Amino acid sequence: MTTPDRPSLGVGLIGYAFMGAAHSHAWRTAPHFFDLPLRPELAVLAGRNRAAVTEAAARLGWASTETDWRRVLERDDVELVDVCTPGDTHAEIAIAALEAGKHVLCEKPLANTVAEAEAMAEAAARAAANGVRSMVGFTYRRVPAIGLARQLVAQGRLGEIRHVRAQYLQDWIADPAVPMSWRLEKDKAGSGALGDIGAHIVDLTQYITGQTLTGVSAMLETFVAERPLPTSTGKLGGVGGTETGQVTVDDAAIFLGRFTGGALATFEATRFALGRKNAIRIEVNGSAGSLAFDFEDMNVLHFFDGTEPAAVAGFRRIIVTEPEHPYVAAWWPAGHGLGYEHGFTHQVVDLVTAIGKGEDPTPSFADGLQVQRVLDAVERSAAANSTWTEIPA
Amino acid sequence: MTTPDRPSLGVGLIGYAFMGAAHSHAWRTAPHFFDLPLRPELAVLAGRNRAAVTEAAARLGWASTETDWRRVLERDDVELVDVCTPGDTHAEIAIAALEAGKHVLCEKPLANTVAEAEAMAEAAARAAANGVRSMVGFTYRRVPAIGLARQLVAQGRLGEIRHVRAQYLQDWIADPAVPMSWRLEKDKAGSGALGDIGAHIVDLTQYITGQTLTGVSAMLETFVAERPLPTSTGKLGGVGGTETGQVTVDDAAIFLGRFTGGALATFEATRFALGRKNAIRIEVNGSAGSLAFDFEDMNVLHFFDGTEPAAVAGFRRIIVTEPEHPYVAAWWPAGHGLGYEHGFTHQVVDLVTAIGKGEDPTPSFADGLQVQRVLDAVERSAAANSTWTEIPA
Amino acid sequence: MTTPDRPSLGVGLIGYAFMGAAHSHAWRTAPHFFDLPLRPELAVLAGRNRAAVTEAAARLGWASTETDWRRVLERDDVELVDVCTPGDTHAEIAIAALEAGKHVLCEKPLANTVAEAEAMAEAAARAAANGVRSMVGFTYRRVPAIGLARQLVAQGRLGEIRHVRAQYLQDWIADPAVPMSWRLEKDKAGSGALGDIGAHIVDLTQYITGQTLTGVSAMLETFVAERPLPTSTGKLGGVGGTETGQVTVDDAAIFLGRFTGGALATFEATRFALGRKNAIRIEVNGSAGSLAFDFEDMNVLHFFDGTEPAAVAGFRRIIVTEPEHPYVAAWWPAGHGLGYEHGFTHQVVDLVTAIGKGEDPTPSFADGLQVQRVLDAVERSAAANSTWTEIPA
Amino acid sequence: MTTPDRPSLGVGLIGYAFMGAAHSHAWRTAPHFFDLPLRPELAVLAGRNRAAVTEAAARLGWASTETDWRRVLERDDVELVDVCTPGDTHAEIAIAALEAGKHVLCEKPLANTVAEAEAMAEAAARAAANGVRSMVGFTYRRVPAIGLARQLVAQGRLGEIRHVRAQYLQDWIADPAVPMSWRLEKDKAGSGALGDIGAHIVDLTQYITGQTLTGVSAMLETFVAERPLPTSTGKLGGVGGTETGQVTVDDAAIFLGRFTGGALATFEATRFALGRKNAIRIEVNGSAGSLAFDFEDMNVLHFFDGTEPAAVAGFRRIIVTEPEHPYVAAWWPAGHGLGYEHGFTHQVVDLVTAIGKGEDPTPSFADGLQVQRVLDAVERSAAANSTWTEIPA
Repeated sequence: MTTPDRPSLGVGLIGYAFMGAAHSHAWRTAPHFFDLPLRPELAVLAGRNRAAVTEAAARLGWASTETDWRRVLERDDVELVDVCTPGDTHAEIAIAALEAGKHVLCEKPLANTVAEAEAMAEAAARAAANGVRSMVGFTYRRVPAIGLARQLVAQGRLGEIRHVRAQYLQDWIADPAVPMSWRLEKDKAGSGALGDIGAHIVDLTQYITGQTLTGVSAMLETFVAERPLPTSTGKLGGVGGTETGQVTVDDAAIFLGRFTGGALATFEATRFALGRKNAIRIEVNGSAGSLAFDFEDMNVLHFFDGTEPAAVAGFRRIIVTEPEHPYVAAWWPAGHGLGYEHGFTHQVVDLVTAIGKGEDPTPSFADGLQVQRVLDAVERSAAANSTWTEIPA
Repeated sequence: MTTPDRPSLGVGLIGYAFMGAAHSHAWRTAPHFFDLPLRPELAVLAGRNRAAVTEAAARLGWASTETDWRRVLERDDVELVDVCTPGDTHAEIAIAALEAGKHVLCEKPLANTVAEAEAMAEAAARAAANGVRSMVGFTYRRVPAIGLARQLVAQGRLGEIRHVRAQYLQDWIADPAVPMSWRLEKDKAGSGALGDIGAHIVDLTQYITGQTLTGVSAMLETFVAERPLPTSTGKLGGVGGTETGQVTVDDAAIFLGRFTGGALATFEATRFALGRKNAIRIEVNGSAGSLAFDFEDMNVLHFFDGTEPAAVAGFRRIIVTEPEHPYVAAWWPAGHGLGYEHGFTHQVVDLVTAIGKGEDPTPSFADGLQVQRVLDAVERSAAANSTWTEIPA
Repeated sequence: MTTPDRPSLGVGLIGYAFMGAAHSHAWRTAPHFFDLPLRPELAVLAGRNRAAVTEAAARLGWASTETDWRRVLERDDVELVDVCTPGDTHAEIAIAALEAGKHVLCEKPLANTVAEAEAMAEAAARAAANGVRSMVGFTYRRVPAIGLARQLVAQGRLGEIRHVRAQYLQDWIADPAVPMSWRLEKDKAGSGALGDIGAHIVDLTQYITGQTLTGVSAMLETFVAERPLPTSTGKLGGVGGTETGQVTVDDAAIFLGRFTGGALATFEATRFALGRKNAIRIEVNGSAGSLAFDFEDMNVLHFFDGTEPAAVAGFRRIIVTEPEHPYVAAWWPAGHGLGYEHGFTHQVVDLVTAIGKGEDPTPSFADGLQVQRVLDAVERSAAANSTWTEIPA
Repeated sequence: MTTPDRPSLGVGLIGYAFMGAAHSHAWRTAPHFFDLPLRPELAVLAGRNRAAVTEAAARLGWASTETDWRRVLERDDVELVDVCTPGDTHAEIAIAALEAGKHVLCEKPLANTVAEAEAMAEAAARAAANGVRSMVGFTYRRVPAIGLARQLVAQGRLGEIRHVRAQYLQDWIADPAVPMSWRLEKDKAGSGALGDIGAHIVDLTQYITGQTLTGVSAMLETFVAERPLPTSTGKLGGVGGTETGQVTVDDAAIFLGRFTGGALATFEATRFALGRKNAIRIEVNGSAGSLAFDFEDMNVLHFFDGTEPAAVAGFRRIIVTEPEHPYVAAWWPAGHGLGYEHGFTHQVVDLVTAIGKGEDPTPSFADGLQVQRVLDAVERSAAANSTWTEIPA
């Protein structure tokens, strides 16, 4: 736990929808379970609508509000800016914050275009030279089972990686009656399933294997091109009326890829896999072992040890709730599973720890840029008859 | 969420070990996600060791401390006392608190003996007449999948209940080197696996079915009768030295039972099921449908609808993370699973809601007494050659 | 495979319903996959109804028929009698066959009463002195995953056994409209779920652990006491009419037990577990490891190795289809699963191999008698208020 | 069952390795469980090595042998030729057999090239005009769960198909020490994982959806290019020596595809997925429902009914062992699972039934040709930078 004598770290959060709520919980909770070098203060929450941001600040536990994010950057009580807005605003806010000397945590995908992401990575590099830290929010890295997966690969227990298969399956817009939202507009969201959820499995597979993708061959599809405009709002869209709008992003993305070490990979990101709510499924096959993970059973990692005698070899269902597992010792006794939001708490822990140590946290903006390049290559391949498209190193 | 204009509810927590940490998290978190009629204030944490309780209060977010629980009852800023101490102190603290006009949340099992539990239930009944509320902490009732299970039974979708099988399997003392702790001493813990975890499956099966047990036939066993005394402490025991102590509780309890509606039941509670960390497994078979639950996969309920045509009938794996499911709408979008501690948060929600409405929350002390009577019947049957032992209504 | 130069073994089969069909398939199939010391000849099929037995013999591949089982025992071309009739006839037929010098394979349960089983075991012992062999048909022992389970226990990989839990769950008479059949009549079947399916889990748990049960505490229940009499017949009962008959056996049996090594055990056998078709579920927890098996996924054995470091320990899903596994090398390449009837084929293999070697096969009639004693103790305990009832050694 | 009065159907089998053994079992077994219009006679087994074919005929139950497959075509007692040789001989044998007026069952893939497959399909069409029937052996279609999957799609319970994901994962050559065999030589096998196992998932997904693939984007990979030459032989390769040979086929194939109805598809076929023995995994997501199948649990089909209320919706684990399911009524009571080889038996049933009715069985040689065209497009796309490659209709 974080003792009261630790110096404070003033946090300003921009955005208070789904991600804003998750980040708020993490800022509130992390110091109660982990020993952080700095004590986070929930200084200010920013949003354009005064009434709404005021309500949200009270609900989420923030001490004050701003209706212009630029004011947050000017405040002395803010040392870290947490960006939870739609992707089209990430570059402007994050770069300005870094230039104002604020540490930045930015939600993924880092940006809506490679050019934006490049500018952000450059700003992050400049800021790092001055001790200002930045991190992109690929929170699923912080699920203990994912951390264990990476450890096993790093320890060589999988040997040479040959196959990666990754799917991120949701179904929340499979029904054509689900109304429009900013996540379905290209100018706001950048892309659809590709950037929203495909970005996660690109990051996760690269993180687990310790390798990067060298190229892709891809297809994109929009199954439902026109949807009702919403007449009210909800967590993910609200209720639709009789007027309609155009969906300008992909509903699904599938692509082949190859990793630097030679492994073949298949990827699928979709919001049309009926019955799958938030199924992040990752499998890795190596010459010495294999792994399988499904976020629908997030506290479990399946591991096949190929060095076991054939008579007793089998995928082990490791329940990743032991004190020996990443992050777990801070929580409950063995067997008491964690939930979705714990990844956000762990993200705060890793970020604040790095800031305290004067180190650059990961994933960096450069990591976020690299993922953006993969997404860009996917779009270019899909637009070019699925032709193999290299990813710049 | 709980708006700032809500009246406050001052809370005093007695105990700060495993359960104390879980309750603290719940008191802190509930108002941020749920709209409570009263705004909990974490007023005071009590424990005998001043240094330890001071550290814990800072870590867990309590505003002040006391080293004598009796002082908590005298404080005007305390309207609710939360009892998280070992079972041998429950009766004294809870009764005194109720008599002092404080609402009481008491961890399970309610007490170490039926006599104590009877006294507590009587105190609770007297207090209720004055609008003072009490609840026993069977938190697993608040897991959304368990709530859904109860709903399905209540809706008649299982028909007449014929079979219940329930297991609570752990393995944390399977190794004889695990040292002594208060949970292994009868005078502190009342019983071993029986009261610690068996109580949960008794409560859960009664809760889900809406019926109570009428009798049992039982066996108890202590596999490892002597263990090293601890030389340091940890969440569940610490490290053992060369001196040893006697284990005076059961390591495992198994029993047969019958429910009021005629169903046959088998129960097993053990800390020696190697490889099972916290596996609460409950199955119910009825004339129209069946259910299966395993806390190792806590966001899932399996439901067999016997009215489906045979060709397409099968146990459905319901991922209980939809807004339609109990408690879930307050959290994340569909598919984003909850963890162990959410049950405690839901417990706070239900308790504060009931207090706000002026209603008696459940499970009541009377419910806790009834579970205690089941545990007592188990012990009596085990001592009497497993002979069928009736449970007083 | 069995070469043509092997001496023949003439087989006479009594009964041609479900079990008769399964045994016929095994006699036909075993020599094509396994190298048997004797070449089975399907000499004669016996049944009381001439038309029916003639049709069955053609269908099942038998060379001739008899309508009186006694004639089978007189035939020189019959060296082995395979008894697939209801339990009330086992003793008479098997004893007569042994006395006629024929080897005997007898379906389980060995008999309907302990007295009958004792007479059979004595007859078997007398016959064995003359080189006449006998075996009782607990075929599930021959499922490769069960064989592997026994090996792991025998190798000490589970350490000291502490818990056994076993369930045999079916649902084929959960519907009260399912009509009467001989399996529901005590004078034909001896008992209901207890002897029909409970006998299997008694045998399997004893076989896997290498231990026997020392006592039980039990309950029996008949949920549906009156059923329509059948107007036509089918594999397991046919269609019911308006007249009814009394069910005189148990619908379900549950019992506690203790094994010779001290382990606690729970057992459940029922035909009322809606949604479970043929779920034989066995779990064993030891001081060094654990096992779990479910016949609904019959080619899989789950094994927890408690000696693994905690960070990578987990139940392994061993797909028991490798050549290293019992019986598997004779069949298909790795990963190509076996089905229900393979157990019968393996039974023939083990029986004929033992006869060829001049050894007594297992499970013996003495083993069958021991199981019968367990079933008898269950009935006596259930009739005596579930009081603990010892099983004679 | 097949009554003795049925006319006979003389069968000649060419090849007696893995597939020959599986087909032999099917020919022997089918008439005992199913009512066939013709009674199969296992007339002759052909193979080049006299000693080996003689041994195999005795073992597998064939009445006579030939060492030249052409002699089989000249025999009057052969009315059907069953081709179980490596793919490079399929065209020659099958066409000659058809021209000799024999019905033909030909193992998959139909041929090693599109040209051969075209010639075979033309020969089949000519023969069909004369009442001579032909079928290609995609046996996995006959797994009951696959049949049920097709029925559900055909009944509209999935709605419009949006996603197909299919994997056939094995690991039998993941170890570089596994020696060469004909399956690793392009001139014998045509291709590697692509044709051997990829062909199955192409056929199965087309069969289940009732649609065909319109194009693909693909990658092929050979992870281990050089392997020891075998010094002895076994079911799938034997033991390797010090001399080596070149692997001239793919070890793995991955490809994207699109179905005629617009669905996106991902395919993966590999022999390097360590820990997966014979995992045929197929998922289909539609607008109204979803399906999932894994041959590692071959008696189960998972079905999500999207029309269920969200609170109780979930993938149902349908155990496909009910009499209502395809083929099952002929076997055992509910819940008694089938194994790998039952698909071959069902194949015989469907083939003989079609011949008896004077109908063309499916899958036809034309179907086999279409699959060959998919495989060919995969190879061409992989050779052309993964560019989208159309499949001729």
